[in-house]
Amino acid sequence: MSYFERFLKTNQAYADLHGTAHLPLKPKTHVAIVTCMDSRLHVAPALGLALGDAHILRNAGGRITDDMIRSLVISQQQMGTREIVVLHHTDCGAQTFTNEDFAAQLKRDLGVDVEGQDFLPFADPAESVREDMEILRKSPLIPDDVVISGAVYDVDTGRLTEVK
Amino acid sequence: MSYFERFLKTNQAYADLHGTAHLPLKPKTHVAIVTCMDSRLHVAPALGLALGDAHILRNAGGRITDDMIRSLVISQQQMGTREIVVLHHTDCGAQTFTNEDFAAQLKRDLGVDVEGQDFLPFADPAESVREDMEILRKSPLIPDDVVISGAVYDVDTGRLTEVK
Repeated sequence: MSYFERFLKTNQAYADLHGTAHLPLKPKTHVAIVTCMDSRLHVAPALGLALGDAHILRNAGGRITDDMIRSLVISQQQMGTREIVVLHHTDCGAQTFTNEDFAAQLKRDLGVDVEGQDFLPFADPAESVREDMEILRKSPLIPDDVVISGAVYDVDTGRLTEVK
Repeated sequence: MSYFERFLKTNQAYADLHGTAHLPLKPKTHVAIVTCMDSRLHVAPALGLALGDAHILRNAGGRITDDMIRSLVISQQQMGTREIVVLHHTDCGAQTFTNEDFAAQLKRDLGVDVEGQDFLPFADPAESVREDMEILRKSPLIPDDVVISGAVYDVDTGRLTEVK
C-alpha cells in the first residue's frame, strides 16, 4: 500500500468525525503564515489555530519568493488577510547545502543543469526571517499597513521565538 | 493584542506539552504533499500525519510553480522524499477571479501593473490537480520513479476524493 492509499484510509475516519459544516472562505483572523515545509512543524497546533483561522503558506525554507508574493496578494486582495507572519525554524534543510554544491549534485544525479539558480539556502534562521520580512516591506504588492511579524520555531522544543 | 502576540502566547502552552525531542530532518514516510493555503484544511489531522511524517508545501491553489519545483527538488534530493501528493480543494479562492479582472483590481487598488502575470486561477479542482500532476511528470527535475498521486479535499466534509 502506498502512503497515499494510507492517507485516503485515515481520511475516511477523519471525515466521519468532521461531519458537514461550511466555514467561510475568508480566514477569521485575517492572518497569513509563511513557513517551511518541514515535517516536524505542524502549524495549526503549534500556533493554536482552529479550522478557518488563517492561511498557511509553506515552501522549502519558508522563503518569500515570487510565488509566495503571488499567494499573499491573493490572500490579501481576494480574501482579506492583513497580517503576515514569517516563520523559519532550527535544523532546517535549507541550512544543509550551498547553491554551488547542490547544482553539481543535480547535474551528476539528474543530468540537469541548474547553474545560477538560487535554491535559497541560509545559515541562520533568524537572519533569513529578517531578510524575508524586508522583502515583504519593500514589495509594492504588499500594502504598507499590513502587519509583518517574524519568528523562529525550535523543532526540538516546539517553541517560537520572536524575531525583530 | 495582534494575532501574532496571541500565537506566541498559545505556543507557550504547546511547547510546555511538547517537551524536548529530536526527530530526524528526513520525513519518515518519504512523502511531500503539495496543497493550498486555505484556512479550512489542516493537512496533518486530515491525512493522519504525525510530527516528522511528511513535507507539507502550500501556496495559493496548491499549484505546481517553479518555487514548488525548487522545494520538491530540495525535499527529494536533500531529504529523500520519493512520493508526491497534489491536493486541491472545493470552494477555493483560486476559483473566484480571472487574471484579467485581478490585474485591473490590483492596478486600481494598489497602483501596480501586473498585466500578463498568471495568478493561476482555475475552475475545476479535479482538472487543476490533473494539470499539476502532468507538470510534475514532465519536469526533468522530478525522477520518473517518483510516485505522483492527486486528490480533491472537500472543505465542507473533510473528505478526500482521489483524482486519476
